[in-house]
Amino acid sequence: MVSTVKHLLFGNPLTVAQAKAERLGIPLAFVLVAANALSSVAYASEEILRAFQGGGVSAQGVAVFVSLAILGLMLIVTMSYDRVIRSYPQGGGAYVVARENLGTMVGVVAGASLLVDYTLTVAVSVTAGAAAIVSAFPEIVHHRIEIAVGMVGLLVFLSLRGTRQSAQLLAPPVYLFVISMFVMICVGLIRYFTEGVTVVPDQRVLTFQVQGLSLLLLIRAFASGSVALTGVEAVSNSLGVFKPPETRHARLTLLLLGVLLAMLFLGISSLAFLYRSELMTEETLVSQVARVTFGTNALYYIVQFSTLVVLIIAANTSFVAFPQLAAKLARDGLLPRPLTNLGDRFVYNYGILVLGGLSTLLVIAFFGEVHLLLPLYAIGVFIGFTLTQAGIAVHVWKRPSPGSLPWFLVAAVGAVVTGIVTLVFLVVKFTDGAWMVAVAIPVILALFWAIRSHYSDVARALSIERYSQPPGRLGSQVVVPIGGVHRAVLPALEHARALGGQVRAVHVSTDEEVTQNVQRRWAKLRTDIPLIVLPAARTGVVEPLIEYIHMVAKSHPNEYVTVVLPEFVPKRWWHRVLHNRTATLLKRALHTEKRVIVTNVPYHLPR
Amino acid sequence: MVSTVKHLLFGNPLTVAQAKAERLGIPLAFVLVAANALSSVAYASEEILRAFQGGGVSAQGVAVFVSLAILGLMLIVTMSYDRVIRSYPQGGGAYVVARENLGTMVGVVAGASLLVDYTLTVAVSVTAGAAAIVSAFPEIVHHRIEIAVGMVGLLVFLSLRGTRQSAQLLAPPVYLFVISMFVMICVGLIRYFTEGVTVVPDQRVLTFQVQGLSLLLLIRAFASGSVALTGVEAVSNSLGVFKPPETRHARLTLLLLGVLLAMLFLGISSLAFLYRSELMTEETLVSQVARVTFGTNALYYIVQFSTLVVLIIAANTSFVAFPQLAAKLARDGLLPRPLTNLGDRFVYNYGILVLGGLSTLLVIAFFGEVHLLLPLYAIGVFIGFTLTQAGIAVHVWKRPSPGSLPWFLVAAVGAVVTGIVTLVFLVVKFTDGAWMVAVAIPVILALFWAIRSHYSDVARALSIERYSQPPGRLGSQVVVPIGGVHRAVLPALEHARALGGQVRAVHVSTDEEVTQNVQRRWAKLRTDIPLIVLPAARTGVVEPLIEYIHMVAKSHPNEYVTVVLPEFVPKRWWHRVLHNRTATLLKRALHTEKRVIVTNVPYHLPR
Repeated sequence: MVSTVKHLLFGNPLTVAQAKAERLGIPLAFVLVAANALSSVAYASEEILRAFQGGGVSAQGVAVFVSLAILGLMLIVTMSYDRVIRSYPQGGGAYVVARENLGTMVGVVAGASLLVDYTLTVAVSVTAGAAAIVSAFPEIVHHRIEIAVGMVGLLVFLSLRGTRQSAQLLAPPVYLFVISMFVMICVGLIRYFTEGVTVVPDQRVLTFQVQGLSLLLLIRAFASGSVALTGVEAVSNSLGVFKPPETRHARLTLLLLGVLLAMLFLGISSLAFLYRSELMTEETLVSQVARVTFGTNALYYIVQFSTLVVLIIAANTSFVAFPQLAAKLARDGLLPRPLTNLGDRFVYNYGILVLGGLSTLLVIAFFGEVHLLLPLYAIGVFIGFTLTQAGIAVHVWKRPSPGSLPWFLVAAVGAVVTGIVTLVFLVVKFTDGAWMVAVAIPVILALFWAIRSHYSDVARALSIERYSQPPGRLGSQVVVPIGGVHRAVLPALEHARALGGQVRAVHVSTDEEVTQNVQRRWAKLRTDIPLIVLPAARTGVVEPLIEYIHMVAKSHPNEYVTVVLPEFVPKRWWHRVLHNRTATLLKRALHTEKRVIVTNVPYHLPR
Repeated sequence: MVSTVKHLLFGNPLTVAQAKAERLGIPLAFVLVAANALSSVAYASEEILRAFQGGGVSAQGVAVFVSLAILGLMLIVTMSYDRVIRSYPQGGGAYVVARENLGTMVGVVAGASLLVDYTLTVAVSVTAGAAAIVSAFPEIVHHRIEIAVGMVGLLVFLSLRGTRQSAQLLAPPVYLFVISMFVMICVGLIRYFTEGVTVVPDQRVLTFQVQGLSLLLLIRAFASGSVALTGVEAVSNSLGVFKPPETRHARLTLLLLGVLLAMLFLGISSLAFLYRSELMTEETLVSQVARVTFGTNALYYIVQFSTLVVLIIAANTSFVAFPQLAAKLARDGLLPRPLTNLGDRFVYNYGILVLGGLSTLLVIAFFGEVHLLLPLYAIGVFIGFTLTQAGIAVHVWKRPSPGSLPWFLVAAVGAVVTGIVTLVFLVVKFTDGAWMVAVAIPVILALFWAIRSHYSDVARALSIERYSQPPGRLGSQVVVPIGGVHRAVLPALEHARALGGQVRAVHVSTDEEVTQNVQRRWAKLRTDIPLIVLPAARTGVVEPLIEYIHMVAKSHPNEYVTVVLPEFVPKRWWHRVLHNRTATLLKRALHTEKRVIVTNVPYHLPR
């Protein structure tokens, strides 16, 4: 039936043995943990330029200095995470580190911000991916949103199939991305200094024009550009992918990632500024730089394509992490329990669907524009940075050892700086959507609390302690709804009689002729069960039946009413569309009636 | 629960008294029956021009003559339908007329073609409506498909709400359409002959250039333009909306419609040809004509807006007619019976949803382009014309009366000509999508046949004649699946024991700790019912339970197995997302098991 279609689409169920994860060395593990961070070079440089837009400043010179300051922050954050890896060799996300060092409440806040963060990672990555596509193919620029939503759909599909992140498969595009970016930066710098290529072929010298430059502007630019750091936290979350010794491999990977990220970010920023690139709504900064460097040829398309793939991989890391975090929170009683259910393919289906739905909503709500989503994303990430670094600072402080003071200072300074960046985002971008994060996190916390209290209420209500007899006797009032007198009805009548008690068959008359037919045939059955005919009110037969059953239950307040439903089951599942679903509708409607037991007696059609 | 949301969206259920239809005089009835036909002037003239495209012919002169030929056909078809109204005062669609005069088989073919026709009416009208919108607002030209699909969604929504076609509400825009079109034609003709305005300000004289003009081209142009006739059949279908004497009112309305339609069609065609309008992908011909005549001012927007509204009304007539025809065919056992179910608002919900789904698919499959959909539409309509006219010709022939010969001749000639037009469309446009209609109608006929034979199989299988005892005794094997030992389980156990027979509780172990807890508490219950613990295989608990129940049924081949399912019902329906749906999944999986009775014993949580 439905499962056949399901298996065709999502693959056959896996066995436990197939679901084991493998451990990887640095070159392959790098692919899985670094894509998220590397993908941020697709939009970070552009954000700095955007901060200066309309500021009356010749941005290019200042922007390079802002980029250098961001590199400093990147150094601090990377060092803090290096310490996290050393202190939490089992893997420590913001949730774990904050909960252990700053208390359960702060941990829960970190959990909520991570949920927001993962959702925005998907939304930002797919919109940036769509921007990369439409930069290369401007004729489909109007389908930006559809492309982004299509990518979410693809990721949901692959995740439900349980497609594992195959590092072997992903390694070529990720390294292609790194290499093509480096080639672009080198070729670009050489061409600039030898041929003097620029986007705007304009002979202005690169001057440091200070009119209109304010401290606020600098801070905004710094905050905007710090989206380059997003994704650095992934390494410390994913120690499980590394071969032993995990800690050493993870630290080396983090170092490698930090160096690569810094070089790519600074390189692209510098090129963009040397080229005097301008912000364009239809083309990304990276695309402009690639086009000027290479021209619109195969190399250009390689840059765009590998950027797209790295962004999709980045989004996919959320499709791995979000359902796992949601399942963890659900096991702690903070989210709905069905989130812990593994599907046939050993993935958390509901978590995947929820993430897909939320990120689609975000993409649509923000018109598929990366720069509108980035402040929200940055806030989520930087709350995590702040809490993690504060946590690790407390951790180091409580366990003093020779040489641990510098680590404490790094983590503490990092926590303060990232905290400030979070606040800057919140204040500066509040009306541009940052209020959503400020609303979302408390809403998630309230949800956590409501769910936890529901579960404890239910547990109390279901406890066998102080249990007294149920309010009614069983099986004494029996109702058999019938639509006609045919073979499917006979076993139901037999079952009803076997239950004992007062049995009646009930027929709702929608058509005078049909009803007379039913009564005539009923008489032929020569049964002692009385047939009650109810008039059809309005549309359908369900309502009068429910009313009748309700009345029976009401007039026998100490007894259970058993409704025995005859139901014929067609041979093929798709034959069901050919028959009215009266039994199903009746069952659904009776679900909330108290003291009503529903018994389904099937009759299987021979063909 | 869900019904609250449903009532909010679709309105409260109606009573029978509210659902009575009212009878209308000619001015108001005209609005309901004429919109479909009138709306075809929005695209018919453009189609003639399109037939000449790339033909190397200065089309304008020839096109006016083609339009005149189409007027001749319009006269014939209108006369035939006048006769249909006289012969079928109860209302006669193609289905009725063909079935009565040409036999059941032909009637069924007419029914199938009508289903296709109604679906295409919706698809064509909404795409033409979207074209009218983007002509006025070229900046949203890329959202043509979304606009059209949005209109289908709106129509589905309004239809499900049971919004009746309020003639009082619709009369102003329909008459505004007629009047504004007339004003446009008059002003346009005056301005052309006094000021000589044209789209292309070009001094070529209007010559009859014959190079490249072939008979095939003329026939194609004639066939293309004959989409102007679509909708004329609506009057004879809808006699129920007229006040008595219905026949007289309907005939007068048909006459009025014929005259208006002819004038508007010829007027717009002439203006377009005088202006030397060119085909444009971004602007409709009507929009071009209106823009040249009035300039882009309020009058122009009135023309576009009233065109849009008339097109939406035309699409809406299908949302009234299709579900009714589908219900009629379902009552005859040719379509699935649920199509006959009236919803709360006295509309055929499933028919509306099916029509909405199919027309959305068509809009998307044909890229929201009217001219790609029109051949399919025309084929559907012209099959109806052909069968109706053939039917009425037979009808008149068999009942000869003084003066009936001319009517016979008109109907017979009409049937032949519309039959030829149908064939021309089929042949000329076969590879452009007309094959779809050639495929769709036989597929629908095969579906009719398969459904009818299924129903007769079921009726035979369910017949009480030759009924022998069911294969097993009832209630002797009882299984109670339990997830834990709590209050919800106790009434189920009690019910199971009351059934008698061999009772066992079954628990699937997914977690060692939980299972030990269950066993400990079970011992405390001091019940004589044995507890069977099954190991969890793979994911979830449903599969091992099904396997166990299957095994019980197999090892007791002459007994029914009763599965007593304890289920706790949360106080609020939205609490359900917080709990696993094991009971629901189990019920669904057991549905196809033979000799398994499922009994649901609910336990309602106090809060």
